[in-house]
Amino acid sequence: MDLGGFSRDDLTPEQIAEQAALYGPFTQAVRDLVDATIRTTVPADDVRAAQAEIEAITERLRSSQLPGAFGVRFNPEGRGRPWGNSVVGLRNPIAPPLVIEHDPEGSGRVWTDFHLGAAYEGPPSLVHGGVLSMILDQMLGEAAGSGGRPGMTGTLTLIYRQGTPLGPLRGEAWIDRAEEYKTWAKGHLIGPDGVTVEAEGVFILPRWARDLLPERGQERPKYFE
Amino acid sequence: MDLGGFSRDDLTPEQIAEQAALYGPFTQAVRDLVDATIRTTVPADDVRAAQAEIEAITERLRSSQLPGAFGVRFNPEGRGRPWGNSVVGLRNPIAPPLVIEHDPEGSGRVWTDFHLGAAYEGPPSLVHGGVLSMILDQMLGEAAGSGGRPGMTGTLTLIYRQGTPLGPLRGEAWIDRAEEYKTWAKGHLIGPDGVTVEAEGVFILPRWARDLLPERGQERPKYFE
Repeated sequence: MDLGGFSRDDLTPEQIAEQAALYGPFTQAVRDLVDATIRTTVPADDVRAAQAEIEAITERLRSSQLPGAFGVRFNPEGRGRPWGNSVVGLRNPIAPPLVIEHDPEGSGRVWTDFHLGAAYEGPPSLVHGGVLSMILDQMLGEAAGSGGRPGMTGTLTLIYRQGTPLGPLRGEAWIDRAEEYKTWAKGHLIGPDGVTVEAEGVFILPRWARDLLPERGQERPKYFE
Repeated sequence: MDLGGFSRDDLTPEQIAEQAALYGPFTQAVRDLVDATIRTTVPADDVRAAQAEIEAITERLRSSQLPGAFGVRFNPEGRGRPWGNSVVGLRNPIAPPLVIEHDPEGSGRVWTDFHLGAAYEGPPSLVHGGVLSMILDQMLGEAAGSGGRPGMTGTLTLIYRQGTPLGPLRGEAWIDRAEEYKTWAKGHLIGPDGVTVEAEGVFILPRWARDLLPERGQERPKYFE
């Protein structure tokens, strides 16, 4: 069942948990390899040997694979799995991944504690300014979605207050105001010396998603990102 | 020699080329593994076997490694190697990597043609809005640096005109205006249906970098990102 690029499958919650238990640690192993790839100082022959082994593993993994990107899967209960997502994707080694907590009351307030290592560097020992914008885009979008107002980024503005050191960080975001299919969200990232970056964005539910609502028997989408 | 987190080494241009020839293809192999990690549909036992092999490779690579992130290395000629950078880093599997061309006249105009696959997905089959902001942050920063006005991101504003499909893309950026240690840069990304995202940002040379200039015998920094 194809819903405009979203797809529904018939996995039970138990099957989803099983997949998470399989792919979570596997993807984490690839994240650790990414870190080691940047930092290793082993001799050139050892690098070449590792490369050959990695190419062989990739070939085996590719013997059966999705034709394209992962997309967002839904089970019959409407629970979404954005496992390919660059920021929160359980199956994406590029994602730190952020585990974003949502206010259970549905206010749209979200927060997360996370750690960024060598792969997220821009200036020496600091997080890349673009990585910070990427994370805030995701957090503001999740704030909108978590408050029942999902959408795609319309505009995003970032103010960098100080450099953000690699290491443990915290992010917070919330809905500022809303109007029809537009939602304004705000947020910031916090390092050891306080707020490092502030963000504000407008998130818009695209027309194709609005058009899907009646087909899915929903007045508002349950999930979108 | 430590320059406030930047470091200088004594590599000749030939040694740098040798390292690029070793680490470039190695890192590309890890990028291909990242893509296969997201897309593979091989049986669970094959996933577990791949995980065990990857963990063993990582352990060998970690037997000798940098204590932290890669930083930015300079050779005696002042040629910088931001090989750990999340967007352009030759040794960073998270980086697509962008190969950004600079106007040889030093106007600050930069451009790049690149391809984004499954690892950069947000909404199904579209590039993550945050990945787009990350790329534009790097491009605007390089425009400023390429025009002789390097700096860290002060503010960044993005306007998303339409969804950006995964696949081949083009980015362009340039300096709009400048004032002491601040530089305003603009840019955009172009997909198959035209401009998808526009960006404007202010880039500021931080005080610690200004303070290094006399020590390095430079009036303006040669390189910074």
